[in-house]
Amino acid sequence: MTPLTPSPGAAPAAFVAVDWGTSSFRGWLMSAEGSVLAESRGSEGMLHCAGAGFAPVLRDHLSRLAAPETIPVLICGMAGARQGWIEAPYLNTPTRLDALHEGAVRVDAGRDIRILPGIAQARADRPDVMRGEETQLLGMIDPAFSGLVCIPGTHSKWVKIEAGAIVEFATYMTGELFSVISQHSILAYAVEAAGQPAANSRPFREGIAAALAAPSGLTSSLFQLRAAQLLGFEQRGDGTDRLSGLLIGSEISDATVRFGRPRRLRLLRAGRLGELYEIAVRERGFDVSADDAEAASRHGLSKAAINIWGAQF
Amino acid sequence: MTPLTPSPGAAPAAFVAVDWGTSSFRGWLMSAEGSVLAESRGSEGMLHCAGAGFAPVLRDHLSRLAAPETIPVLICGMAGARQGWIEAPYLNTPTRLDALHEGAVRVDAGRDIRILPGIAQARADRPDVMRGEETQLLGMIDPAFSGLVCIPGTHSKWVKIEAGAIVEFATYMTGELFSVISQHSILAYAVEAAGQPAANSRPFREGIAAALAAPSGLTSSLFQLRAAQLLGFEQRGDGTDRLSGLLIGSEISDATVRFGRPRRLRLLRAGRLGELYEIAVRERGFDVSADDAEAASRHGLSKAAINIWGAQF
Repeated sequence: MTPLTPSPGAAPAAFVAVDWGTSSFRGWLMSAEGSVLAESRGSEGMLHCAGAGFAPVLRDHLSRLAAPETIPVLICGMAGARQGWIEAPYLNTPTRLDALHEGAVRVDAGRDIRILPGIAQARADRPDVMRGEETQLLGMIDPAFSGLVCIPGTHSKWVKIEAGAIVEFATYMTGELFSVISQHSILAYAVEAAGQPAANSRPFREGIAAALAAPSGLTSSLFQLRAAQLLGFEQRGDGTDRLSGLLIGSEISDATVRFGRPRRLRLLRAGRLGELYEIAVRERGFDVSADDAEAASRHGLSKAAINIWGAQF
Repeated sequence: MTPLTPSPGAAPAAFVAVDWGTSSFRGWLMSAEGSVLAESRGSEGMLHCAGAGFAPVLRDHLSRLAAPETIPVLICGMAGARQGWIEAPYLNTPTRLDALHEGAVRVDAGRDIRILPGIAQARADRPDVMRGEETQLLGMIDPAFSGLVCIPGTHSKWVKIEAGAIVEFATYMTGELFSVISQHSILAYAVEAAGQPAANSRPFREGIAAALAAPSGLTSSLFQLRAAQLLGFEQRGDGTDRLSGLLIGSEISDATVRFGRPRRLRLLRAGRLGELYEIAVRERGFDVSADDAEAASRHGLSKAAINIWGAQF
């Protein structure tokens, strides 16, 4: 929630960029050149706002940012979901990332506030959706980029991009399964409460190796994690790392079946989870180049804002 | 909890058989020939008794069964776990099923009360444990049986038996994952609360087919289940069946990698879950012969009781 104080003589504020997720709000006061003048963060994500309302939460953050009343606001993420503020209908694959702003939906309010759309893969055999990651992708790639991108998270995404267009993607429930299984299943007895996986431990690497060696065996490997402790092969302190390795390894194993194994992989990193994925995908033989996920969001919002309002900045 | 009233002139009571699981107690007053004279059931499983004590719960059920004070009691299941009443240490694979009674541990009490051991696969690469299923297996097979057995449940087991000995087995967290995912993950929005999977529905069969077609793709298929509903390809009413199909299909897919695909499969059926598995394994091409799981428990306890006390019956 701490606003950055703009330094004297900084570029003037041109717009406000907002990444509004399921459980978090991140807003930035931006210059026309895409530099950050102030920042405001909070835990008022979609789940919170579904009850409390979106408008008052945004108003508070705008006032913390000291955003001039005349500048517009561009939002990406779950605020545009059907259960969000205003639905910004999905664009369907294949879709060029630099056309994202064309699907923005305007909120009916005094200020010019728009929400970017998510992207849907509307195929009965591989239905999938994203909201927020498309803006990160827009921010991280060149307009002519072709390649494979991995975006770790609660619902990790693997995205195949051809000449600047998303052609196919897949979501893995890795992060959410980690949390649900470690809290609510018998494995709660096999992991440390509130344990954070260590980025480079033996059990983490063994979990990845086990998942790669038995690609279909996840639901059995999960029980083995518990049995290994009952039989004295492992300690409870190993559980969090091994569980993390099994789930991330299972995701990578399937993603390489689905998207092949190009030499290079772009990874959108955020925090500890980003470190874990970087180790795991290198283990799988990828040449990784990593970008910062949050900077990518901001950069994507800036690119779209310039497409929408550039002339008036 | 309803005791059966022994019919006049029935065989005399020889022993009490108890299947004492994590969350249930099932006791039977048995004749020397293995017929059931009375039955008493309750929800006082290991989890309950860890606090309330095992001895008083058993005493209550023995009195409901009107069990003569002179007859012994044989118990299988989680009551023999380390967190149970008295630990009955695991026998290690490979182990003959008809040697199970040799590992029975006697509870220090006035009456002759013994608990059968579980079985461990004490291999660092495939650690696994069972408690209760070994007694069902003893009950269902002939002493010379060779073949593959599937025991559906919260923690499903696939067991390879050679000439009456368990040589290898694998546990799948299928039932528990179904419950945890449908209650605590985002899929709670995609399944009906307290929904019971239907045994032969289209989404159930499609879930199985999807799991068999993409053996490594479980954590992605789970998200697709939600996305299919967001995009209008499926209804929420389909969610429970599809989730069940995906998880059971994933189990069967891996079990056939691990144990091969013998023509015949023995299935230990109990209730609705048994029906679902019977459909799913037939779909996979097995010739199935199904036995009743509870009768198998009772029969296994009888075989072991005769081995222990047969001379005095």
